[in-house]
Amino acid sequence: MDNFVFYSPTFFAFGRETEREAGQLIKKFGGSKVLVHYGGGSVVRSGLLERVKTSLTEFGLAFVELGGVKPNPRSGLVYEGIALCKKEGVDFVLAVGGGSAIDSAKAIAAGAIYDGDFWDYYQGKRIEEALPVGTVLTIAAAGSEGSESSVITNEDGMYKRGAGGSAIRPKFSILNPELTQTLPAYQTACGITDIFAHLYERYMTNTKHVEVTDRLLEGLMQTLVQEAPKVIADPDNYEARANIMWAGMMAHNNSCGVGRSQDWASHDIEHELSATYDVAHGAGLAVTMPAVMTYNVDHNVMRFAQAAVRVWGCQMDFENPKNTALAGIQAFRNFLKLIGMPQNFAELGAKAEDIDQMAQTACYGDARKGSLGGFVSLNKEDVSNIYKLMLE
Amino acid sequence: MDNFVFYSPTFFAFGRETEREAGQLIKKFGGSKVLVHYGGGSVVRSGLLERVKTSLTEFGLAFVELGGVKPNPRSGLVYEGIALCKKEGVDFVLAVGGGSAIDSAKAIAAGAIYDGDFWDYYQGKRIEEALPVGTVLTIAAAGSEGSESSVITNEDGMYKRGAGGSAIRPKFSILNPELTQTLPAYQTACGITDIFAHLYERYMTNTKHVEVTDRLLEGLMQTLVQEAPKVIADPDNYEARANIMWAGMMAHNNSCGVGRSQDWASHDIEHELSATYDVAHGAGLAVTMPAVMTYNVDHNVMRFAQAAVRVWGCQMDFENPKNTALAGIQAFRNFLKLIGMPQNFAELGAKAEDIDQMAQTACYGDARKGSLGGFVSLNKEDVSNIYKLMLE
Repeated sequence: MDNFVFYSPTFFAFGRETEREAGQLIKKFGGSKVLVHYGGGSVVRSGLLERVKTSLTEFGLAFVELGGVKPNPRSGLVYEGIALCKKEGVDFVLAVGGGSAIDSAKAIAAGAIYDGDFWDYYQGKRIEEALPVGTVLTIAAAGSEGSESSVITNEDGMYKRGAGGSAIRPKFSILNPELTQTLPAYQTACGITDIFAHLYERYMTNTKHVEVTDRLLEGLMQTLVQEAPKVIADPDNYEARANIMWAGMMAHNNSCGVGRSQDWASHDIEHELSATYDVAHGAGLAVTMPAVMTYNVDHNVMRFAQAAVRVWGCQMDFENPKNTALAGIQAFRNFLKLIGMPQNFAELGAKAEDIDQMAQTACYGDARKGSLGGFVSLNKEDVSNIYKLMLE
Repeated sequence: MDNFVFYSPTFFAFGRETEREAGQLIKKFGGSKVLVHYGGGSVVRSGLLERVKTSLTEFGLAFVELGGVKPNPRSGLVYEGIALCKKEGVDFVLAVGGGSAIDSAKAIAAGAIYDGDFWDYYQGKRIEEALPVGTVLTIAAAGSEGSESSVITNEDGMYKRGAGGSAIRPKFSILNPELTQTLPAYQTACGITDIFAHLYERYMTNTKHVEVTDRLLEGLMQTLVQEAPKVIADPDNYEARANIMWAGMMAHNNSCGVGRSQDWASHDIEHELSATYDVAHGAGLAVTMPAVMTYNVDHNVMRFAQAAVRVWGCQMDFENPKNTALAGIQAFRNFLKLIGMPQNFAELGAKAEDIDQMAQTACYGDARKGSLGGFVSLNKEDVSNIYKLMLE
């Protein structure tokens, strides 16, 4: 196990009706003038936004609003939010929504007190200072409610990049599983796939002797395997929603990923798909992950076999462990199909002729240096080959 | 799943040589005049105390020392520490040691800025204010390095009681597995047993639909099952020590126990043993837990069967699940024996003639109301019967 630091000072309020605590929590963490940042549509229609604003008013908090966040959140709205914060003297940013609203809120919070261009942070500069951020989460997926990272799509070229720093870790996050019950099955499944990716990206490690984090990651994966079909069959299943929601936070606050190298190749390879075709990140990951795993399987057959046995209940083939490793990848693919995720480029609406450009951007785009991946170092040719595996 | 809040703002520095960061971390969390609180013996002999003090000096921190903490830490030393803090104007308490040093430090930190008797907190008053606490951990066991609780033995009657409150959650904890390599096998095993207890106390729940926390608890138990024999066989196995150390923290910061009722009967029943005979808490738990489980098995056979199958690898007896449930308890008992823990009253040095008094104190002692346990409510007769199960 490697040396590490772990620091997750987010206050989580979890359960029914907890969105009513938004005002109280902002007050507790020192806010007085709030930017309420959200997408639109369902947050407004469901009355959630109104309930949150009522809570803010109840605690004497002034606020301004900025809606319009889209999936794969864009740099343009971030600039708009930063300008609004500066103009209005905002001292707290509240995201109401999913990972997109939260990531956009984090970018605004960092940019609002930074003299330079906020995009500097998305080119590798650590975020050391930001306005405090709180969240009211509406989908179990990105884990941004408990993480110190943010991913934004730069509209000047349409590519996604991530930034990080403990300053943007939310001061509080409100997790009410009821709020996720209105999500369509497809979005729910995209979220579950994203959670799975956060687990597999950590699971694919070259660090030896990491039994404790392996077991925790496996436990979270098993939770998804068991609970996901329940919510797809019955969107109103509060209990299954609750289990998935806590799994989503635990998958990404890094308590289960400490002290080990991690991969993140699937995320980097997928980001070109969602940036190019504006598909849901989870849907892109559903196509990308099995391809990355298949491409990398020989790098450490026993690691894939371990997941196959412990997570997917495959029988160990002691004569030929690779059979087990491949059976585990196939079981994962079957699971993704079962919950309604796309399986290949065609179902995603992606095109073979874009592969070269995407591989080029993934490996050499903004601030990249020719390779990606912490488990296997993948160059442009590898990435192209992985995209090609997704054609079938 | 029940509604819950979760807040674990402790900064963890984990790995080799991290004790050298003590001074820097105290500074980061606002300390200037430090009480260094420890036991004695090994902390001094190993040079750890010197290294920590060097780090404090390096960062310009003034400090006073108070050693002498014993296992099952006593109220007398707490009063002494409180007086010392007041006299010297201490603004930060650093524990160097195991759960006893940390729990004693927490009590001192709370008492140092409280006008009343610190024991009020151990009779049920929540700790809302305390001096900041930091820890340098020397044994994987109590989980106090990441928890908001403290257990102290009142010398006026020799009984143990717990207190809690987020104010005593450590600001930082330094976890260097190397520091645990010098522990004798017996103490190591006591620590592992204590960690197991923190997992089983949470696992024994009456809350339905808690798959995510079940899986996390099971994952941590599986880690102990796999890693414990390695450190008993080879005390210098850094990697196994590291896995157990992180498991010990995760077992008790409650990230894996949220949203569910918990038991804690074994702890309450054991506390009378360690208070009466001054045995190690872990050794007492090794004798207590299987007895409590056996006594409670009919309350929820399937819960015990689940642990038997998932943690202990027992075959499920679908015709008679109780066989599986009991096989799991026996497997746990075998594990405890394997790592060198006592199995009954005789091996613990406890006496049958004290049972009535211990059951009386456990159920009716200071601030108790006649019963204990969150899984099955146990009255004095039940507790007596459980102690009697430990005779064999």
